Amino acid sequence: MKWLSYLYKGNLNYGILKDENEIIPVQEVLPNPPATLLDFIKEKPTVLNIETAKETIDLKDVVIQIPFTPPNNIMAIGKNYYNHVLEMGSKEDVPEHILVFTKSANSLIPHNGEIELHQNITEQLDYEGELAVIIGEEIRDISESEALSSIFGFTILNDITARDLQKKHKQFYLGKSLDASCPIGPFILENQTNEEVTFHIETKVNGEVRQSDTTEKFIFNLAKIIADLSKGHTLFPGDIIATGTPSGVGKGMTPPTFLKAGDNIEITIDKIGTLTNKVRKS
Amino acid sequence: MKWLSYLYKGNLNYGILKDENEIIPVQEVLPNPPATLLDFIKEKPTVLNIETAKETIDLKDVVIQIPFTPPNNIMAIGKNYYNHVLEMGSKEDVPEHILVFTKSANSLIPHNGEIELHQNITEQLDYEGELAVIIGEEIRDISESEALSSIFGFTILNDITARDLQKKHKQFYLGKSLDASCPIGPFILENQTNEEVTFHIETKVNGEVRQSDTTEKFIFNLAKIIADLSKGHTLFPGDIIATGTPSGVGKGMTPPTFLKAGDNIEITIDKIGTLTNKVRKS
Repeated sequence: MKWLSYLYKGNLNYGILKDENEIIPVQEVLPNPPATLLDFIKEKPTVLNIETAKETIDLKDVVIQIPFTPPNNIMAIGKNYYNHVLEMGSKEDVPEHILVFTKSANSLIPHNGEIELHQNITEQLDYEGELAVIIGEEIRDISESEALSSIFGFTILNDITARDLQKKHKQFYLGKSLDASCPIGPFILENQTNEEVTFHIETKVNGEVRQSDTTEKFIFNLAKIIADLSKGHTLFPGDIIATGTPSGVGKGMTPPTFLKAGDNIEITIDKIGTLTNKVRKS
Repeated sequence: MKWLSYLYKGNLNYGILKDENEIIPVQEVLPNPPATLLDFIKEKPTVLNIETAKETIDLKDVVIQIPFTPPNNIMAIGKNYYNHVLEMGSKEDVPEHILVFTKSANSLIPHNGEIELHQNITEQLDYEGELAVIIGEEIRDISESEALSSIFGFTILNDITARDLQKKHKQFYLGKSLDASCPIGPFILENQTNEEVTFHIETKVNGEVRQSDTTEKFIFNLAKIIADLSKGHTLFPGDIIATGTPSGVGKGMTPPTFLKAGDNIEITIDKIGTLTNKVRKS
């Protein structure tokens, strides 16, 4: 099942995507549903069979929103694909332990939302197509074998990065947290298994394929990331974890090629969908 | 004026500290007050003269709480005192630009709350006494000359750090965000000026003075920190910024001396008060 939050006739609601172009409002499969998708993730009530839904909405009639505002900053794993580590530096930079930074929750924008270029403070705005995990349970000190069952679902995240700020400020937070620098969505694919799932990630800029790789190439897989993050550090329902980007970012090109106003970025992850965002001047 | 949040007879409330040992509940100086201290900071209503208050509560009869749960992770400035940079490394590490990382909002604990030792995952838990700033307005791209008027107030923060995790994971987030690793409070001193205010910070462990310095030694002063943080990155009412720690942390001692169960840490900042916390085994 794929979930999304949307505006329809001015009202914020959430529901289930059906057949790629229709939405089943949550009220159709759940009497008195929790107020938001975040509350739904926390309470995790059982929904009725979607075949019982009577009314659906056309996907083209809604404005897709960010799935929810997370309870904490987005946690993000750096340097999690070998080839990306190489394009950014050298093999000495391959991490021995997960590298974790955060992105401000205020930097989130939805599918079709506009990425700000921030041309007055950065000359090196770059994209990073990533698989993001949505935590579904409150967990701490969880083992790798139990970690995957704590995942509510999977979505797409563009870890927009101002490379010059990332470098200048040493710690990544500021270069990763400019306003409107974290597109997410459009859908959350609900997790159905306690196994490591493989996804394919493809990023296009103005139609040109820049990144194309699979999560089989992770240096740290999902079970390891979640287990390590949960050591002495409680994870909460709605926590978002971006799992790192494959090679093919603008900084790794010859010559390095950064984003400019009007650029259109599409990140496709099989089984989830395509996250599309345009860049505009600040 | 100093503000605090507290539990009294099982109810969460907030109010003003009077004469160091009495609390004026907010209802005494404001009819229909905002529900929480965070809402108060956002709405900033004018309070009545505190001399009009009829009922007060003894400070000893309440349990002090964290001032509020911030809307975002705590932002923290690293390496902001020259002598602390030296004790942690060398003068080549003196930053040219603010170094910003975040601490999980879930790591906050109140005055008298217990710091977890996390003895199973770290052998190097350390204290860092710091001045913290509470932002009072929504600001972006603010100039240094306007920055200080956006401060609602000042409080004390202990930026507890697992040094081994900080090093092992490269980016600081995880080593700085273990559960119960961010004591804050007990009071927020309201900001009365648009000038840089100097504070004296003293940290004692089991009665022994370990840190003693003033914020005149900042590498980046408050106006610079806030102005730089606000570049393309909106700050919100209730955002907490920890401004860095002076020299005298356990890691800088000869030999390095880390926290152990039972240790009592008192951080005193003149004009604000003393933040006291004990360490307990996890």
